[in-house]
Amino acid sequence: MDLATTAKPHDRLAEALKGDMEAVNAMIRARMASEHAPRIPEVTAHLVEAGGKRLRPMLTLAAARMCGYDGPYHVHLAATVEFIHTATLLHDDVVDDSKQRRGRPTANLLWDNTSSVLVGDYLFARSFQLMVETGSLRVLDILANASATIAEGEVLQLTAARNIATTEDTYLRVVRGKTAALFAAATEAGGVIAGASEARVTALRAYGDALGISFQIVDDLLDYRGTSATGKSVGDDFREGKLTLPVIRALAKADTEEREFWARCIGRGRVEAGDLDRAQDILDRHGALESTRRTALDWAERAKHALRALPDHELREMLEDLADYVVERIS
Amino acid sequence: MDLATTAKPHDRLAEALKGDMEAVNAMIRARMASEHAPRIPEVTAHLVEAGGKRLRPMLTLAAARMCGYDGPYHVHLAATVEFIHTATLLHDDVVDDSKQRRGRPTANLLWDNTSSVLVGDYLFARSFQLMVETGSLRVLDILANASATIAEGEVLQLTAARNIATTEDTYLRVVRGKTAALFAAATEAGGVIAGASEARVTALRAYGDALGISFQIVDDLLDYRGTSATGKSVGDDFREGKLTLPVIRALAKADTEEREFWARCIGRGRVEAGDLDRAQDILDRHGALESTRRTALDWAERAKHALRALPDHELREMLEDLADYVVERIS
Repeated sequence: MDLATTAKPHDRLAEALKGDMEAVNAMIRARMASEHAPRIPEVTAHLVEAGGKRLRPMLTLAAARMCGYDGPYHVHLAATVEFIHTATLLHDDVVDDSKQRRGRPTANLLWDNTSSVLVGDYLFARSFQLMVETGSLRVLDILANASATIAEGEVLQLTAARNIATTEDTYLRVVRGKTAALFAAATEAGGVIAGASEARVTALRAYGDALGISFQIVDDLLDYRGTSATGKSVGDDFREGKLTLPVIRALAKADTEEREFWARCIGRGRVEAGDLDRAQDILDRHGALESTRRTALDWAERAKHALRALPDHELREMLEDLADYVVERIS
Repeated sequence: MDLATTAKPHDRLAEALKGDMEAVNAMIRARMASEHAPRIPEVTAHLVEAGGKRLRPMLTLAAARMCGYDGPYHVHLAATVEFIHTATLLHDDVVDDSKQRRGRPTANLLWDNTSSVLVGDYLFARSFQLMVETGSLRVLDILANASATIAEGEVLQLTAARNIATTEDTYLRVVRGKTAALFAAATEAGGVIAGASEARVTALRAYGDALGISFQIVDDLLDYRGTSATGKSVGDDFREGKLTLPVIRALAKADTEEREFWARCIGRGRVEAGDLDRAQDILDRHGALESTRRTALDWAERAKHALRALPDHELREMLEDLADYVVERIS
């Protein structure tokens, strides 16, 4: 078997960026330490070492390398991006009262909510120190803006929950906040630290943004049509009253009875036996799943299209394949 | 009555910095806005407009002005410092499950813990954007380090709670985290943005650090000897099992019976009727309150001493008076 052609794109990226990723992992371990508060590395290690795919730091490294960077700071930026991501997960699990993450009990379950809140704050501060070390005000600007977009998106998701008047516009804003803002900042910052041209920086940002949106729409779609094969449990968003794209599109075509169904389940959270099946039926009947699927594919195409402004490079091909891979589960 | 001599030092600072503070308040209002997530300004306004003394932003403004600054960025920095402070309060109230802050119900009580966590994250990100706008990497470095110290101190406080083996060294670290780190960063950043000499920047940092430590020790002391006149309720730390300086010093002199008393009340949280009175008795008998008081006065002296490296200025006098005022409640 030839790894170059048969392995999954993120595994090929990990292989191509092996030396860099080792440096990133070493930096993450060094910077999550706290001499005085051992709770911090305990909580962080639980999450960081749980075997996440490290997709975001790889995006930064790939972007920088693809643009010819050979300095040291792409490693700082990749670690920054992973810390921001980890801080967000810690706070998310508190907000959602989650019990499981990456197949293991969450930090808020193993320790407590307060540890998750404070260790998240610590990691965010550490990420901030790391980016200051790069000495690039432009990179700091990108990551500061991403941080604000992430937090705003989270609040927006919280306040839009159970509101069946939520628009596609709001949905997209939430998706950018929870996923695409950090993807876009990860790729853009990689280009900026490499001193890439404005056209390439813009393209890298567009790639990250579109990839992140595609990624999140697929996730939201699988919540209604996943199977055991996709490894994703079904119906979580439905039960939690999250207004995701399939539901927003089904609501746009709903008759009075269906509208009352969504208002009861999603709006008032009164879900009864058989309701998830009925939801899936309605989504299917209005073509909401199919149209959501096409939107995810569109964004994956946009991501690949953006890459055309980048130089011909094996990493560019892997990023293209990554965009295909993200939507493969729904193709 | 002559405002210059009879008003409280923070009121005189507010008067001397009036124009600047108006600009800071306008910037805070503008930057706490969120077009898309109205929950954010609601929660923030509840806290920001609750009539806090704005001590930290005034420290930044005074430091910058005293060093002859006449650019615009001290306003950004002052707003930054207030945002970091507000974000910290929001998260603290979640961590401590507080119901009241500044005489009003806390945000976590009025809305929910999740809003407090996420709006805190948003304000932290906004503060980060504001400091990037100053264009000073050195200021970013100072505030990034302060953020990490704050978060580390909070985690340390969490894990040191109910541990009667806590040392004065750990206590000081917690105090620097919860209070002095931001005071020190506030004054230091003001000097740096003004382009002050290294000697002055160091002095400003030392002032903020010592003032913050003094401020927090007074607070911890009043928790055992406050009266209705000080406006501080008594016994909160005792009931919450916080190891503050008076208790650490009383424990150092405790006999077996007293040690068991502290272990039961602070260590295991089994507080019974009459225990607070007994605690106050023990603290008094061992001179722990008096020795804590002297330590607070020492830090206030250190703060004033540090100011000698600064130029002669009416603001310098107000900062000196502020150090005296902080300990006035226990003099």
